Amino acid sequence: MTTLFNDPSEFADDQLAGFADLYSDRLVAVPGGVVAHRGEQPLVAVVVGGGSGHYPAFAGLVGPGFASGAVVGNIFTSPSAAQVYSVAKAADQGRGVVLTFGNYAGDVMNFGIAAERLRREGIDTRVVLVTDDVASSPSEEQRRGIAGDFTVFKAMGAAAAAGHDLDDVERVGRAANAATRSFGVAFSGCTMPGAAAPLFTVPAGNMGVGLGIHGEPGIHDAPLGTARELAKLLVDGVLAARPSTRLQTAGEHGAPARAAVVVNGLGTTKYEELFLLWGSIAPLLREAAIEPVDVEVGELVTSLDMGGTSLTLMWLDDELESLWSAPAYTPAYRKDGGVIAGLRPADVAGLDAAADDAPSPSAAGAALAPLVMAGLRTISEVIAANEIELGRIDAVAGDGDHGRGMRRGAEAALAAATAAGSLCGPAWLLTRAGRAWAAQAGGTSGVLWGAGLEAAGASLTDEREQYTAADAVAAVDAFASALLDLGRAEIGDKTIVDALVPFAEALARGVDRGEPLHDAWRTAAFAATKAAEATAVLSPKRGRARPLAEKSIGTPDAGATSFGLIVDALAGLAAPQTT
Amino acid sequence: MTTLFNDPSEFADDQLAGFADLYSDRLVAVPGGVVAHRGEQPLVAVVVGGGSGHYPAFAGLVGPGFASGAVVGNIFTSPSAAQVYSVAKAADQGRGVVLTFGNYAGDVMNFGIAAERLRREGIDTRVVLVTDDVASSPSEEQRRGIAGDFTVFKAMGAAAAAGHDLDDVERVGRAANAATRSFGVAFSGCTMPGAAAPLFTVPAGNMGVGLGIHGEPGIHDAPLGTARELAKLLVDGVLAARPSTRLQTAGEHGAPARAAVVVNGLGTTKYEELFLLWGSIAPLLREAAIEPVDVEVGELVTSLDMGGTSLTLMWLDDELESLWSAPAYTPAYRKDGGVIAGLRPADVAGLDAAADDAPSPSAAGAALAPLVMAGLRTISEVIAANEIELGRIDAVAGDGDHGRGMRRGAEAALAAATAAGSLCGPAWLLTRAGRAWAAQAGGTSGVLWGAGLEAAGASLTDEREQYTAADAVAAVDAFASALLDLGRAEIGDKTIVDALVPFAEALARGVDRGEPLHDAWRTAAFAATKAAEATAVLSPKRGRARPLAEKSIGTPDAGATSFGLIVDALAGLAAPQTT
Repeated sequence: MTTLFNDPSEFADDQLAGFADLYSDRLVAVPGGVVAHRGEQPLVAVVVGGGSGHYPAFAGLVGPGFASGAVVGNIFTSPSAAQVYSVAKAADQGRGVVLTFGNYAGDVMNFGIAAERLRREGIDTRVVLVTDDVASSPSEEQRRGIAGDFTVFKAMGAAAAAGHDLDDVERVGRAANAATRSFGVAFSGCTMPGAAAPLFTVPAGNMGVGLGIHGEPGIHDAPLGTARELAKLLVDGVLAARPSTRLQTAGEHGAPARAAVVVNGLGTTKYEELFLLWGSIAPLLREAAIEPVDVEVGELVTSLDMGGTSLTLMWLDDELESLWSAPAYTPAYRKDGGVIAGLRPADVAGLDAAADDAPSPSAAGAALAPLVMAGLRTISEVIAANEIELGRIDAVAGDGDHGRGMRRGAEAALAAATAAGSLCGPAWLLTRAGRAWAAQAGGTSGVLWGAGLEAAGASLTDEREQYTAADAVAAVDAFASALLDLGRAEIGDKTIVDALVPFAEALARGVDRGEPLHDAWRTAAFAATKAAEATAVLSPKRGRARPLAEKSIGTPDAGATSFGLIVDALAGLAAPQTT
Repeated sequence: MTTLFNDPSEFADDQLAGFADLYSDRLVAVPGGVVAHRGEQPLVAVVVGGGSGHYPAFAGLVGPGFASGAVVGNIFTSPSAAQVYSVAKAADQGRGVVLTFGNYAGDVMNFGIAAERLRREGIDTRVVLVTDDVASSPSEEQRRGIAGDFTVFKAMGAAAAAGHDLDDVERVGRAANAATRSFGVAFSGCTMPGAAAPLFTVPAGNMGVGLGIHGEPGIHDAPLGTARELAKLLVDGVLAARPSTRLQTAGEHGAPARAAVVVNGLGTTKYEELFLLWGSIAPLLREAAIEPVDVEVGELVTSLDMGGTSLTLMWLDDELESLWSAPAYTPAYRKDGGVIAGLRPADVAGLDAAADDAPSPSAAGAALAPLVMAGLRTISEVIAANEIELGRIDAVAGDGDHGRGMRRGAEAALAAATAAGSLCGPAWLLTRAGRAWAAQAGGTSGVLWGAGLEAAGASLTDEREQYTAADAVAAVDAFASALLDLGRAEIGDKTIVDALVPFAEALARGVDRGEPLHDAWRTAAFAATKAAEATAVLSPKRGRARPLAEKSIGTPDAGATSFGLIVDALAGLAAPQTT
């Protein structure tokens, strides 16, 4: 959804005006686009362009080492010939102009008309089309230009910055385009400024294979799988269309082929998703004997707020590799390998804490351990069953991560205790479980539950001759004390404390009265559940919910709720043999 | 919508693994996060962190001139104390550690526990909280940290890179935080990996004022207005909370106060929208006597795929300004003012074509001019009335911009002709109209309609003694020839040509038969409309729709359809007086 504008029909002009104001120290607005400031030595002008809606393409790529100027049309619309002419005329430094853009009929026409006019005025002007989208046509010349714009423009910008002449910059551009292949998928459409609906939609659970960057739907729909499956689809798609030149095979002496790689996000597909995808693409390329060089993962050629991604490879020879690796400094893309060349890695050896050896438990400790394991399993199960509901409650006035965090913690705790093995005592198991919970769940609830379990374990110890109901009360008290010390919350603050304290008090009361632990626990769990429900009327005083106090009223606290669920589920376990 | 993942519960780990692989030449993964490679001279370690889902915060900010390490928790969840400890331990270079992060209970707790442990091991460790979100609390100390993380971390990173000692880096951090204020709004919620629904929603036409960056909804909802209105809301919100120090007033001698400025996008709100917003924020800051310094507009502290934006100001003194302007080189943020310092602007004078003087028309030309004006007005009206439907047709297999492009073109043509004035002849009016159409509409249809009108005008001339029906036929033929020459499409290619050629042929036939122009036009317009409808069965051979040929079948061509609408509407005009 494109949300920010004044008059939708002025979107392209308004955004360009803001951009030119922002970067007025390095570029200047001209009718139709922007032109980079220049240095002492005149250079061949590399003028890129197309419609707007693709940022950082195209204005974001103007600067030293990259484009000399960018023509910026309306959204998804070719600029006019007059706009192209105006930008190229301003960008020309007396050494000629290369006009370069993706292969679309409107652009071909308008840049072509402008090239004629520039030539008539004595400005030597060349045209280099980008045709990287392998999904758009079986014929190489008829293919559209998508994220391959980036590698082709970069090669030419670097050649121009190195002082190459017009023939050479044009030659480099054609070589770069001939070596570049892209393949992409769409997850969701984009919405024009002021429009109520996206230009296309992708059915839920599907993706459009063979994306366009102007709001065109994919060429066909297919089920959306995991990132690993998508990585394979993209790598297979690009490699199936390897350039039919010497670049297609591995290097000499069987060395891997080298390739510039771009994993491009279309707008809504975020960086962290793209990094995750790269984690699956990298091994596939290496398996295919392709060595990725200076990989770029990010938003380079976007399509407003579209969801989707594409993979681009530019097969490298020595010349293209040096151009691809050369420095550049534009609003959106800055590179200088020299800055990091002299650095050395931090010493990270020995950061994993060495595992301690577990002490041998007493006979009573060994007998209690299975109950601890059963308890951890119960916690994990009850949280998994309620994860979504806990997330929903938390999202009313919080960040919605409570269910997920508790689940990660509980599962990590169970796994750590299981890994510790069946010969360990209850304290050891609870300590390992607590540390794992805190480490894996993260967040406030994670650290509290982790510290609580660790404290309960420390209270129990592994060496008693017998374990009594009073020991259970003491362990619960240790759990509660750890949480109260760390969280500094009080009754009425709308936190876990509101359920925890009534539980601990009721349990102690019941055991004091001589009730079997199992009965006292059930009564205490009932009290905790009721207390958790009663937090709905409260206004939060602590934690992330505090700034949203008003919205929270009417919904119980997620931490108190999950505590109530857990102690209630634990009441279903068999009573300890020791009571 | 977060779309790319393997196992949703492993999202944070998986994305960090991909990130570490990608940037293995400059940083190294450690348990809990990443640590930058280091130079020859040991520096104070600035360790930033928090949950994941905020990229480039926090791992993207690790590198020379910025953070030494980043702790990366699960999505929207504090890292555990063990993770913080691990990263800080690896980042320490023997000169001490500053742990810095936004003010959230879980982070305060976990970073605090880690700081204690580091101190016990003899590593001098300081903690600097970021509390920039003015919407989250009236109390400065209780405020949350949002995009102000960026300015505070940057100041400390630059101080550490300059070799400052631990006391000094900590002091700079506290000063930076005391000088930083942010205020933001949310347009839409974000969706956790694997979740079916966003963590919150914003009612249509509204925005959440006082955003959170962990999927919390806004503090209250308010109607969403124009970018200009939003700019005012944000500037007013930040300025109302100016720091109560010497920094709050203008500089000495009445000079403007200087401030670092960040316009942050939350994820789905795109760069072009943010540039547009900056275009409205900049004048408001200057009116308030604030000189923006090295403004950053972009995605710096995100919240998955959330829509929204925030404005951050850090009021500068000389020390903070030099730290803010210092070079940095991280995965997501690279700055080196030296690269652009020596450049000079291109010469852009005289790029606007000077206006020619219109020749005086003949009496017949002057008499025909009002009909040309009426025709341009009719075109503009019929396109405006059909803009959305034309866009819908075009979106089936194209980029959906046909209606918008035609409307911009037709309006620009009418405006240019109106501006030319009532004393001009028909050829002059059509020429100006055509040039304006091509310049403003852009795209294939824009250049074709522009060239066609210009050719029609050239055919008519302004100096005839009379204008006959045969002159109208000749003008239409000139229009058609211009389009056929430029577009190189043929009948059956599913373009405007499929309606244009039948129209021109029918018009010529009727006039040849001696029919009044008005009648012949009406018959020809009917033929054009039918021919446009008949393009539905065709498969496109040209233009952007070509790769989507299959989807296009069943829908008529948008360009043929708009041509039919226009000639049909023109048939409703009064018959020319000359026939």
